[in-house]
Amino acid sequence: MESKGISKAVINRLPRYYRYLGVLMDQGIERISSAELSRRMNVTASQIRQDLNLFGGFGQQGYGYNVAHLYEEIGKILGLDKSYSLIVIGAGRLGQAISSYFGFEKRGFRIEAIFDRNPDKYGGASIRGTRIYPLEDLKEYLKHNRIDIAVLTVPADSARAVTPVIVEGGVRGIWNFAHTDLDVPDSVTVQSVHLSESLMQLSYKINH
Amino acid sequence: MESKGISKAVINRLPRYYRYLGVLMDQGIERISSAELSRRMNVTASQIRQDLNLFGGFGQQGYGYNVAHLYEEIGKILGLDKSYSLIVIGAGRLGQAISSYFGFEKRGFRIEAIFDRNPDKYGGASIRGTRIYPLEDLKEYLKHNRIDIAVLTVPADSARAVTPVIVEGGVRGIWNFAHTDLDVPDSVTVQSVHLSESLMQLSYKINH
Repeated sequence: MESKGISKAVINRLPRYYRYLGVLMDQGIERISSAELSRRMNVTASQIRQDLNLFGGFGQQGYGYNVAHLYEEIGKILGLDKSYSLIVIGAGRLGQAISSYFGFEKRGFRIEAIFDRNPDKYGGASIRGTRIYPLEDLKEYLKHNRIDIAVLTVPADSARAVTPVIVEGGVRGIWNFAHTDLDVPDSVTVQSVHLSESLMQLSYKINH
Repeated sequence: MESKGISKAVINRLPRYYRYLGVLMDQGIERISSAELSRRMNVTASQIRQDLNLFGGFGQQGYGYNVAHLYEEIGKILGLDKSYSLIVIGAGRLGQAISSYFGFEKRGFRIEAIFDRNPDKYGGASIRGTRIYPLEDLKEYLKHNRIDIAVLTVPADSARAVTPVIVEGGVRGIWNFAHTDLDVPDSVTVQSVHLSESLMQLSYKINH
């Protein structure tokens, strides 16, 4: 699987292809033409052919794409053939929503632990079987557990404060919901979901 | 305020400028040079000048940008000088997280009502004072209340099923958290937050 030189725009489109291919598989559809995929996804057929040809000739003239094969190959490119250990930092409502969504686990993202400044607030409880630990135990926890991804669902100040602990603890990726950018070394990837900014983009579009 | 012909890429960057300018205001900083803003935002000074000049000469040579003025003008472009009425459809954990986040209200996004297929599940309760109504009342509710934005925090099937009701009810924008695209007329704007896709982009980046 050659995936060098693939543009950021194509990478950003891959999860959407993956989603549509998953729906096709659920519907028992085994192959699909670029024209039909184009109609469903509301993307030009030429863009589909261009994007998918980058991964090496999955489509065959007059036959179309093999749905299961393409789904699997795109999954591999996205790293979904591996599994990842996650921790969630912040057991507030957003942290609870993320921790209790089973869909991530299905894709290989296992939430191993949840941390909160005040775990007593949640009655020493667990969320869907995952225990909530005091935030002060995070450093020690990361010494003994290999964690791939930390999910930050705390306010901006707390997110910036906890980031060096996460980085030192060997975490490779941060899924950041805090309303701030984070300062990390090149070895750590930050993927941010800025909800307020998304809502502002919606208000812009409503007005223009 | 001339904002025609502004590219989508610039629009996508505006909320981030807005966030940084808000932090500067909180810190009591009244003016800032493009060089200093560049250092803080980790964007080239020439991009900053290019982006902000589109809105007509806010920067002055040797003086820099007037933070409060720029903040206000970008806010206007984003439509944040107006207020918006919202409903949240889906009172699950994500719906609760969105409904209880006070930061949106501060920006003029007022959540007027929450709808759920099974409001009894939540004890006929309200979230931060906002009442949860049965989903079957949505159509009638929209006849009597002007709602600008509907937030969808329901599964994909339910999101597609409720969309025609929302569209007929005169809603102008949909903030969609469901793992599906939505079919709407041109008069309605959909802004999607696909959490699974964001996590897949993170796993891609961790592996490359």
